[in-house]
Amino acid sequence: MLKAKILSQGRTKEQWLLEALAEYEKRLSAHLHIEWVLTDALEEACLKEKHLIALDVQGDLVSSEALSRKLASLWVQAGSRLSFVIGEAEGLSDNILRHAMWRWSLSRLTFTHQMTRLILVEQLYRALEIQKGSKYHK
Amino acid sequence: MLKAKILSQGRTKEQWLLEALAEYEKRLSAHLHIEWVLTDALEEACLKEKHLIALDVQGDLVSSEALSRKLASLWVQAGSRLSFVIGEAEGLSDNILRHAMWRWSLSRLTFTHQMTRLILVEQLYRALEIQKGSKYHK
Repeated sequence: MLKAKILSQGRTKEQWLLEALAEYEKRLSAHLHIEWVLTDALEEACLKEKHLIALDVQGDLVSSEALSRKLASLWVQAGSRLSFVIGEAEGLSDNILRHAMWRWSLSRLTFTHQMTRLILVEQLYRALEIQKGSKYHK
Repeated sequence: MLKAKILSQGRTKEQWLLEALAEYEKRLSAHLHIEWVLTDALEEACLKEKHLIALDVQGDLVSSEALSRKLASLWVQAGSRLSFVIGEAEGLSDNILRHAMWRWSLSRLTFTHQMTRLILVEQLYRALEIQKGSKYHK
């Protein structure tokens, strides 16, 4: 079982977001467990993580296929446990960025916390489906 | 009043998506009216549009600030009426791409129809808020 810890300061819990996240977490449940860490002490929490991926608007832009290959390799490197941190609009601190094993950009666009959480979970699901060769990605 | 017509083949209507879209459409309602065209005859519908923006994974990647400036200029050029087409995972037809005045990429990642609709509407809202100099984008 793979594990993804997602760290974020965003505490807003819109109903639509919870419903959408629940749908993807259900689909992922056989292969990947997601743990949410919603905290105000984001830097402190991040620096404790051994294998941290920083979602950074200036990070690497990759296709979903390339993401799938990248994550497959990172899951192995990290003993099946990866952490992801979602920053604020003003970006993550230098300490967090330096600590991260990879800086990944979903887009050059700025998204809300809420949408970033949903996009991240959907991409984790898509990455696994691509590895399985399923039709989801077609 | 600005008008955005959004053309898409996606007919799935998850409840969470409708709730999230309704929230942004409500916020936009004073400045921008969104018309949804969900059709199987996507190419035919697109070729009738005078000012079409194609959401294409291989299109231009821009920041939200640059998008705001670009759209401000396109709204003027298009007499306040722009159309946006959301493609399938396999992409839009060459006819549609050639007809478009701009090819815009939300991301190199592949998103679902549902999420693309939500991201597009949120970015239209964000673009207007940036033009207004509001705090939303901060």
